[in-house]
Amino acid sequence: MPSLAEQLVQWRRDFHAYPELGFCEYRTAASICDVLSGLPGCTLRLGPAALSADGMMAAPSPDEAAAARAEALAAGADSRWVEQMGNGLTGVIAEWVFPRPGPTVAFRVDIDALPVTETAADAHAPVRAGFASLQPGRMHACGHDGHTAIGLGLASLVAARSARENWGGRLRLIFQPAEEGCSGAAPMLAAGAVDGVDYFIAGHLGVSAVEDGLVSCGTDSFLATTKMDVILRGVAAHAGIKPHEGRNALLAAAALTLQLHAISRHGAGDSRINVGVMRAGSGRNVIADRAELELEVRGTTTAVNAFMTAEAHRMINAIAQAHGVTAEERLIGVAESATCDAPLKRIVRAAAESLPQTRRVVDSLPLGASEDATCFMNAVQARGGQATYVQIGSRLAAGHHHPAFDFNEAALVHGAELYAAIAGRLLGPRGTGSH
Amino acid sequence: MPSLAEQLVQWRRDFHAYPELGFCEYRTAASICDVLSGLPGCTLRLGPAALSADGMMAAPSPDEAAAARAEALAAGADSRWVEQMGNGLTGVIAEWVFPRPGPTVAFRVDIDALPVTETAADAHAPVRAGFASLQPGRMHACGHDGHTAIGLGLASLVAARSARENWGGRLRLIFQPAEEGCSGAAPMLAAGAVDGVDYFIAGHLGVSAVEDGLVSCGTDSFLATTKMDVILRGVAAHAGIKPHEGRNALLAAAALTLQLHAISRHGAGDSRINVGVMRAGSGRNVIADRAELELEVRGTTTAVNAFMTAEAHRMINAIAQAHGVTAEERLIGVAESATCDAPLKRIVRAAAESLPQTRRVVDSLPLGASEDATCFMNAVQARGGQATYVQIGSRLAAGHHHPAFDFNEAALVHGAELYAAIAGRLLGPRGTGSH
Amino acid sequence: MPSLAEQLVQWRRDFHAYPELGFCEYRTAASICDVLSGLPGCTLRLGPAALSADGMMAAPSPDEAAAARAEALAAGADSRWVEQMGNGLTGVIAEWVFPRPGPTVAFRVDIDALPVTETAADAHAPVRAGFASLQPGRMHACGHDGHTAIGLGLASLVAARSARENWGGRLRLIFQPAEEGCSGAAPMLAAGAVDGVDYFIAGHLGVSAVEDGLVSCGTDSFLATTKMDVILRGVAAHAGIKPHEGRNALLAAAALTLQLHAISRHGAGDSRINVGVMRAGSGRNVIADRAELELEVRGTTTAVNAFMTAEAHRMINAIAQAHGVTAEERLIGVAESATCDAPLKRIVRAAAESLPQTRRVVDSLPLGASEDATCFMNAVQARGGQATYVQIGSRLAAGHHHPAFDFNEAALVHGAELYAAIAGRLLGPRGTGSH
Amino acid sequence: MPSLAEQLVQWRRDFHAYPELGFCEYRTAASICDVLSGLPGCTLRLGPAALSADGMMAAPSPDEAAAARAEALAAGADSRWVEQMGNGLTGVIAEWVFPRPGPTVAFRVDIDALPVTETAADAHAPVRAGFASLQPGRMHACGHDGHTAIGLGLASLVAARSARENWGGRLRLIFQPAEEGCSGAAPMLAAGAVDGVDYFIAGHLGVSAVEDGLVSCGTDSFLATTKMDVILRGVAAHAGIKPHEGRNALLAAAALTLQLHAISRHGAGDSRINVGVMRAGSGRNVIADRAELELEVRGTTTAVNAFMTAEAHRMINAIAQAHGVTAEERLIGVAESATCDAPLKRIVRAAAESLPQTRRVVDSLPLGASEDATCFMNAVQARGGQATYVQIGSRLAAGHHHPAFDFNEAALVHGAELYAAIAGRLLGPRGTGSH
Repeated sequence: MPSLAEQLVQWRRDFHAYPELGFCEYRTAASICDVLSGLPGCTLRLGPAALSADGMMAAPSPDEAAAARAEALAAGADSRWVEQMGNGLTGVIAEWVFPRPGPTVAFRVDIDALPVTETAADAHAPVRAGFASLQPGRMHACGHDGHTAIGLGLASLVAARSARENWGGRLRLIFQPAEEGCSGAAPMLAAGAVDGVDYFIAGHLGVSAVEDGLVSCGTDSFLATTKMDVILRGVAAHAGIKPHEGRNALLAAAALTLQLHAISRHGAGDSRINVGVMRAGSGRNVIADRAELELEVRGTTTAVNAFMTAEAHRMINAIAQAHGVTAEERLIGVAESATCDAPLKRIVRAAAESLPQTRRVVDSLPLGASEDATCFMNAVQARGGQATYVQIGSRLAAGHHHPAFDFNEAALVHGAELYAAIAGRLLGPRGTGSH
Repeated sequence: MPSLAEQLVQWRRDFHAYPELGFCEYRTAASICDVLSGLPGCTLRLGPAALSADGMMAAPSPDEAAAARAEALAAGADSRWVEQMGNGLTGVIAEWVFPRPGPTVAFRVDIDALPVTETAADAHAPVRAGFASLQPGRMHACGHDGHTAIGLGLASLVAARSARENWGGRLRLIFQPAEEGCSGAAPMLAAGAVDGVDYFIAGHLGVSAVEDGLVSCGTDSFLATTKMDVILRGVAAHAGIKPHEGRNALLAAAALTLQLHAISRHGAGDSRINVGVMRAGSGRNVIADRAELELEVRGTTTAVNAFMTAEAHRMINAIAQAHGVTAEERLIGVAESATCDAPLKRIVRAAAESLPQTRRVVDSLPLGASEDATCFMNAVQARGGQATYVQIGSRLAAGHHHPAFDFNEAALVHGAELYAAIAGRLLGPRGTGSH
Repeated sequence: MPSLAEQLVQWRRDFHAYPELGFCEYRTAASICDVLSGLPGCTLRLGPAALSADGMMAAPSPDEAAAARAEALAAGADSRWVEQMGNGLTGVIAEWVFPRPGPTVAFRVDIDALPVTETAADAHAPVRAGFASLQPGRMHACGHDGHTAIGLGLASLVAARSARENWGGRLRLIFQPAEEGCSGAAPMLAAGAVDGVDYFIAGHLGVSAVEDGLVSCGTDSFLATTKMDVILRGVAAHAGIKPHEGRNALLAAAALTLQLHAISRHGAGDSRINVGVMRAGSGRNVIADRAELELEVRGTTTAVNAFMTAEAHRMINAIAQAHGVTAEERLIGVAESATCDAPLKRIVRAAAESLPQTRRVVDSLPLGASEDATCFMNAVQARGGQATYVQIGSRLAAGHHHPAFDFNEAALVHGAELYAAIAGRLLGPRGTGSH
Repeated sequence: MPSLAEQLVQWRRDFHAYPELGFCEYRTAASICDVLSGLPGCTLRLGPAALSADGMMAAPSPDEAAAARAEALAAGADSRWVEQMGNGLTGVIAEWVFPRPGPTVAFRVDIDALPVTETAADAHAPVRAGFASLQPGRMHACGHDGHTAIGLGLASLVAARSARENWGGRLRLIFQPAEEGCSGAAPMLAAGAVDGVDYFIAGHLGVSAVEDGLVSCGTDSFLATTKMDVILRGVAAHAGIKPHEGRNALLAAAALTLQLHAISRHGAGDSRINVGVMRAGSGRNVIADRAELELEVRGTTTAVNAFMTAEAHRMINAIAQAHGVTAEERLIGVAESATCDAPLKRIVRAAAESLPQTRRVVDSLPLGASEDATCFMNAVQARGGQATYVQIGSRLAAGHHHPAFDFNEAALVHGAELYAAIAGRLLGPRGTGSH
């Protein structure tokens, strides 16, 4: 029987070889269910019970979902699980209810991969060790393979320790799809994923914690974000003979892009705007009747992001009107800003300091990007609970989202033990989290 | 007693020395009334009877009108006339009713000057001969001083010839203010200036007829036009501290300008767009709360101009909305495209060929610009009448609207005789225009 | 043995079933060579002798050309011809030298198809008669299948009549690829296709001649055009973390598009501008490092088009610089404006009036679009020759470039006989074209 | 003889009644010289010795300067001083050299007023007390009248205390013109205003210290800024007849404005951009040949501001080129970000706590705007010295730059005593600042 460290590496490498994009993580989720269903005391929620199809953003089309399911089955996923996951309902929630009363503690790990082609260089550890991505154009380039393994490691430790240490209350483990793009948290929130949660912990390998053994008890500088697609529809016309009969969706998209990027800076905090993709028009000599834009706004606070979102919304509609075209907005993802709670950060510190893997502990490190764990955090805090977002240190072979990204697998056992130690302090008999 | 030629030069030089801008031609109009009121059989309409205040575009403010009236009185205008002209009602209509039945023939001359500073160069004839503009910043740089003199010359000839030649019908003489900017014709039309007109003739010195003795019987290539001012109103804010609280009228004006200039070309004819003036903002560190634009669109047909006008209108309002500012549009002037009638052009040809001053006659020359005489022309034609726009040839010292513009004064008597000869052919006993 | 009419229909339907895009007309050109090589007295030029690879615009990549050759061979093309055509050298020139001296007369027909998917509706004659396109996404939707057949019909008639009628001089038949996009004429011109030509005739089925039996001896309202692709290359960066390190090619493309569409109207004639296609960016949260635009400008004269081209060129480079990106321009096609020669139009009239198929003859009809035959026309005229562009009438099932486009096949024999009659008048013993 | 408090109020009210704009503070500077020249041991530098004409930004024209001098003389300024101040050289530097060795301590006060029309409301204290602005359109709406009075108060206290308290080293008092617009510090720096300075103190009434008796020992959140005017020059043309011959400066200015506002956000800190004023064009029907823009960029760090400045510079030139116009940039003002030194802030705290007027002391308050005192601060720090920027608390009747701005005059004596106490601690025998 493998040690925890060996088991974690084995899981991680399997996930790494089979990367799946947001809402298409059928094989990953099925593997999670395989492991969890074998653990005593663990109740599973999946499909609509874990992730609400209503108002789902960026959902795959039925065809895309069917193709992803077929691929997962071909790669060994158990059809028993896959059948329950419908079109993109790839979240999984595990819960343990302990005999003694106590608080409800939730950990969230994200499970999706990125549309990045993994490097084939020999220097890249997954290549050398033979577990590089088997799917061209997809890669676990952000460490979510490691997060998923840590989540499974925590589950194993819970099973082993909760009875021995006489834990009370409940422990919930949230495996979230589609963190990239910030579209997975909202539909799990809508399915009640953090209902009743008193303590919420999410985390990430690396980010600003790029030395081995470092633990950051919290995270700051989350950028709130709104991600959307815009489709402009006009009227085609021959550009030489009847240009005036056209309604130029490409020109409207160009004007819109320029004006979106010129939305005012905000006095209360930094903001961002990016139209990252534009596809418009069908031919050089035809007035374009269709343009598609993929864009996002961000802000250092939820309020600044809301300002950017409202400005963008007004502009999209008015500039479409100025050019006589119609605009359709599709919300693709949202994340908020968030603040980690000091008492919970102190518990993380105590837990971290209790571990032999820990070399250094800091109170907080910045994220500087967007994370939809913030939606869970704010929901928990709004009901009086506490939340934090930890960073688990590791040297990185290359930055996040890079084709040569890789982390030190020693961080896996550090992460799983850290989470279990936090759970133990909150749920154990002398837990800080006693109700 | 001076000859007609001498009298025409004397009138022209007096008007040249006292140039007045659109709707402020109080002294000019009063001089016209002075002359016409002394002619037998001539009935005068002025003030509201000649020009309707309702829907007047680009009207002077009460203060501006009062200042212009005071200036005119100080320069010798008869207060009897000035008092009847209210705020900008500076059009004059003269009419002769002849004993015999016959058609109604109308001639229109324009009387306003331009906001141009006349050159002080010795080579400039008005300087040499001592009749250059006495009003800094204003100049008869388009020959309307000559047109007004020709109109008075025609009146003198009518008085002399109509009885002798036994004319029938009616002759109407329309002195129109504010041709520059195309705002004078519409309110005279609204006052009934061409009601009942069977033949309408307007004309211009020079333009494309830049050789002495040339007569063009008609004109083509009129550009229909719509001229308007736009005022955008936003909300000021400190550009450093609270830029997001502003509503940036300057930025909206910039975006609008760019998109107006990008209005589609029209497949059915050439178009124009020009934002010619922008004034916006109050300080470098303040989000601008106000922007003013002066703009015009044009088209080689009334339909193309209507397309441009409609596009501009939609853009003005929608782009204002995109930037959260309000837009006010003020219509300043309109002109149409027009086609000269071949039968009337043949009469002009016959009249021209009967004159010793005529050296060459052509059927039509282009204008390539806008003229609100077209509003009269189309109104007359819409009721079954005929219309033309003649060009009376003259070498020019410099192009129209240039500070050194000047024409050959020999063209004055040519013009007056041409108009009288046209009238004679239409109203005389064997007139083509017999009813 | 089939009649000429039957043979023309058979050829046309074969070409219709195997449509090939610009510079990929291997099967079409091979079929042309098959027919022409069997005719007495006919000399063939193909490959580099017909079309110069130097400065070729919009040339297919080696891979695209190889795929097109393979497809042509699979569809029965003779490898003897295909091998000579290299990468896109799909033009063919046939020439007959007659014993007597005389002028050189050239006819040009275009042979390429369009990227249009042909309708599958039963009402569509090619569907009913079983010769609809066998290539999804490609269609002879502009009648060039008919033009090619007419060219082969002319060749047959030349073979039959030239000796019998004792023709003198030379007859040249130019089969031009890539007329759509206006990229085929220039490299054939560079290969000397109209060197020594005294009379040049090109033509089109339909266009403005949309009644059966109508012949237009000439064409006006050609729009000169320049077609180009622009590739902007910037620097990618994370839109949340380091937007300032990016060089935004998408934003530059948007700004460029807006400003290109705002290029000034020209006082000397109508113009056009269209950015018809834009593809930019790789991800919502990445500053786009690449943008591609497909654009064209046009003008009612070559000078107006040159103004538009120069303005666009300056803007492309300067706006790229403004955004810190680089710009690459790829010239894709050019056409000029052109004027048909009156003497040659009179010969076309006489020829047309001699034919039983002709029901009505007009001097000229407008094109209103762009045609690179104008490059040949202007080149011939620049050396003292004459040129015209005829329109051969036919009712159309739907407009040019429409998925249901179709013409009346009776026009084929009309066209071939018209061309032969023109040739006969120019080259015959009493020819107008006698040297 | 008035008390210090009475004297300060008298000075302040005199300056308030005679507000003078940047580089036109002739009367203000002459009054300063009047006072300082009567103090023992004080050496004066003025004219070129205080402010270098080389590279002066936003200098008045000779005519403007002459008019301002004439106005100052008419308002009682001593011509002896005014004559030395040339065109805008309105800075004054006073220095005391004490017998003992010691550090050099510099205080800077700013003396200019704003182009704001003071309210005439009775509730406004300067109206009630009869010292409101006598210059329509100008107002001390930012408290620099108070700063100047505090500077003179400090001078009086230095004279009184330095000998008695046996100060060593040097004390320099810098009266800076043109702080509004950030153009006064650079030319004083170039004249050596802070050469040899070990401790530099500047300060402001109010800002974030809007309670009476509050002292902030330092200031953060300075926005670095670059202020410039841009003049675009094109070619005029008739918008109807020859638009293509124009080079449209207004359209270029509009395009530039939009693209300037779309300069990328910076990942390392907040930025600002504002085109606050645009004036362009001369007539609706003329392609505009001139456009003027007044703009500014800012950044929370000098580096972010430098990024904005560099981006703007590149865009100005390239977009002018795109439109075929020329661009002239005129640098109007610069300020930097700055960090206050902790040791010097501790001295300020000790000084503040020693005063009866002080009710509360804080370490730092934000500015949130731009201040060119930062140029002095960074220059001093670059040579090893220390610098801080204090805030002297006062309730405000209305915000800075508002027509009803006013502060509590009790803050004047608090400010003068604070500065003197700081000087005493740095220059006194037991001074922290002993060398």
